[in-house]
Amino acid sequence: MKKVLIQIDSNKIPSSFDTITALDSGVDQILPYGGVIPGEVRDIVYGAMFTRGESELKNSAIFIGGSNVSVGEILLKEAVESFFGTTRVSVMMDANGCNTTAAAAVRKILSCGNIRSKKVTVLGGTGPVGMRAAALLAKEGASVTITSRKHDKLKDTCGTIENRFNVKVTPAVVNGAEETEYIISDSYVVISCGAAGVTMLSEAGWKKFPAIKVLADVNAVPLLGIEGTKSHWSAKEKEGKIIFGALGIGALKMKVHRECVSNLFDQNDLVLDAEGIYKVASRLN
Amino acid sequence: MKKVLIQIDSNKIPSSFDTITALDSGVDQILPYGGVIPGEVRDIVYGAMFTRGESELKNSAIFIGGSNVSVGEILLKEAVESFFGTTRVSVMMDANGCNTTAAAAVRKILSCGNIRSKKVTVLGGTGPVGMRAAALLAKEGASVTITSRKHDKLKDTCGTIENRFNVKVTPAVVNGAEETEYIISDSYVVISCGAAGVTMLSEAGWKKFPAIKVLADVNAVPLLGIEGTKSHWSAKEKEGKIIFGALGIGALKMKVHRECVSNLFDQNDLVLDAEGIYKVASRLN
Amino acid sequence: MKKVLIQIDSNKIPSSFDTITALDSGVDQILPYGGVIPGEVRDIVYGAMFTRGESELKNSAIFIGGSNVSVGEILLKEAVESFFGTTRVSVMMDANGCNTTAAAAVRKILSCGNIRSKKVTVLGGTGPVGMRAAALLAKEGASVTITSRKHDKLKDTCGTIENRFNVKVTPAVVNGAEETEYIISDSYVVISCGAAGVTMLSEAGWKKFPAIKVLADVNAVPLLGIEGTKSHWSAKEKEGKIIFGALGIGALKMKVHRECVSNLFDQNDLVLDAEGIYKVASRLN
Repeated sequence: MKKVLIQIDSNKIPSSFDTITALDSGVDQILPYGGVIPGEVRDIVYGAMFTRGESELKNSAIFIGGSNVSVGEILLKEAVESFFGTTRVSVMMDANGCNTTAAAAVRKILSCGNIRSKKVTVLGGTGPVGMRAAALLAKEGASVTITSRKHDKLKDTCGTIENRFNVKVTPAVVNGAEETEYIISDSYVVISCGAAGVTMLSEAGWKKFPAIKVLADVNAVPLLGIEGTKSHWSAKEKEGKIIFGALGIGALKMKVHRECVSNLFDQNDLVLDAEGIYKVASRLN
Repeated sequence: MKKVLIQIDSNKIPSSFDTITALDSGVDQILPYGGVIPGEVRDIVYGAMFTRGESELKNSAIFIGGSNVSVGEILLKEAVESFFGTTRVSVMMDANGCNTTAAAAVRKILSCGNIRSKKVTVLGGTGPVGMRAAALLAKEGASVTITSRKHDKLKDTCGTIENRFNVKVTPAVVNGAEETEYIISDSYVVISCGAAGVTMLSEAGWKKFPAIKVLADVNAVPLLGIEGTKSHWSAKEKEGKIIFGALGIGALKMKVHRECVSNLFDQNDLVLDAEGIYKVASRLN
Repeated sequence: MKKVLIQIDSNKIPSSFDTITALDSGVDQILPYGGVIPGEVRDIVYGAMFTRGESELKNSAIFIGGSNVSVGEILLKEAVESFFGTTRVSVMMDANGCNTTAAAAVRKILSCGNIRSKKVTVLGGTGPVGMRAAALLAKEGASVTITSRKHDKLKDTCGTIENRFNVKVTPAVVNGAEETEYIISDSYVVISCGAAGVTMLSEAGWKKFPAIKVLADVNAVPLLGIEGTKSHWSAKEKEGKIIFGALGIGALKMKVHRECVSNLFDQNDLVLDAEGIYKVASRLN
């Protein structure tokens, strides 16, 4: 029986990245649905629930993507609420790669040493990956600060993280380089999660603080988020810091993504969101 | 050469149920098209007609779905009229599962004994499955009554059935339990084809009539159409009746659906609508 | 690793013709995207660039179709500009079958003898196939005239051909049979590329000119473009002319189309537009 993955995407064009990665994870057939709104999820999920016998349900699974993580969470909720009893299939939510990328970045950071009670700053922490990374770092015991230029969005993000993950993170509004540097000056780790192509931190800006031991950047599209780094670096040492670029993190992200998709087909009742995906990343790195 | 099934669906999101069932029927590649309007059918069908040589045309076929049966019939007509001469491919129409579900339900009912000249009542007989079931039961010689609350829709439905299947069925407008019970009181078979989640007949309502020998319900989503039954029942005896629930019928429905899709690839000129699908069901049960 | 072809189509319904032909070209998985606008190309292409390692990039490729050739060229440009460095995948553009059909038609014409410095008339030369055929014939040294009823479109087309292919073609506005016959009277080759189902040239109109040696018609849908011919003819002799119908050309077109798709997966940096596809056709016929 073919392993079928239903790809539910809130974007008009369902992510080709997610489709190809699924095919490389051992899925036999992927069914991509684009522009899906919450009210359409139930019928799509019923198609997975009612086409195969109970003992074969683990051969069907659902992946929820799209560039909007909040919408992704709503679609995930709709999917899970469509199940009844043991008539269910496994589901993974990774809108915008938020969970797999954040999990990989955090595992890479942890590979450099313990972060418990240490200060970690997430630059551009209100985006999809930033929010997830901040939450996972806080759950590992770090004292996490997230920065943004926008006060309201920052406040919302901290509230969302607290509600969803039951951890506290500190908001820091920053306007310009000087304020950013003030925040990171005593950080042990700085991770840059801003928009693709936008420099979040200058080279001079990170070189001058000896407290910083680890730098990570999830943006692969030039300009990089952290100036003076290379996207393919993985634990590269420079100026006394250990540095991870987006592709350096990306290799683990791809491994985690594929392993998670593959795991969906081991059982019919797995739900993989941030926590579950992070567990898989922990096993792999 | 890969067996390719083109899935034409009038709904925006093409049915994942139909896609997965096709994959489980031996199709190598399914091409689902959603939101298809009649004027778009011809070009899609040309793609099946002109890509493979005449001797290989049986490796391409078309499935027409969507939740609206009338639109499904129009799409089927468009597809068939696109063919010329022997340059054609096989086509199956099963919008909303109308044909496979009705065929399976009728075969299950017939497995309990002859229905020739006996009274059969189809509750909610104006829906996709109800119309098809009423027509097939009438063609088997039963005296069929279909019920609905809406006079106009009932009249239209009876006209449509007569035109399409060349059989007569009796309309019965029912408002509330009392009128429904009056209609079924002397029925040999009662089949419930109303909307999902809506109770069409109370347990007390069917228990009191000794004339009723067979009960069937095509609705699997609670509340069931016939109260006091279970959706997984298949020829279960209770209170002197033989009862079929939606999942009891569904096992045969899936078998019929898969066999029909599989048959499309045996030749390049099969057209499977209600009658052809019923023939397949008759062979299987 | 599966060979994945991304099919980018500007039409709402992505061409089933292109999808099935890709499957028959050895592609393992095709991902059809319909209704794609230029601004959506980059993200789709990134999905091909960033999911597989550099050494495996040749297992992903892109096909650009749709019925509008100008839009196809824009989508091709968007795709190619998304690449950076060696991180790229192969791409083929064949909107409306313009390149494969024109290449096959021209190769069939050349199989009848040299056309250098000979007059060739392209009837309906402003359409997708006509423009491509005119350009390829001119590049082979023929003296090409294209006809149309519309002066402005004709002027635009000649300009486009000159800019894109660096060859000159002669425009001829024709209103009715008499003017068409005047233009073809001294042509060595006449190729009809008008709209499907429209007769461009009557039988009497071509029989009377002994100068004409080769006739070709790319329209397979009755009425044919050149009256008194059959679409399955391939180098059929009649009245002293060698005649090719659309299906006669179509067999080579299909071979070229499949070979081109297959070639995409031999390397990760092939770009197949008119010239590259014509080269493949030249190898095959």
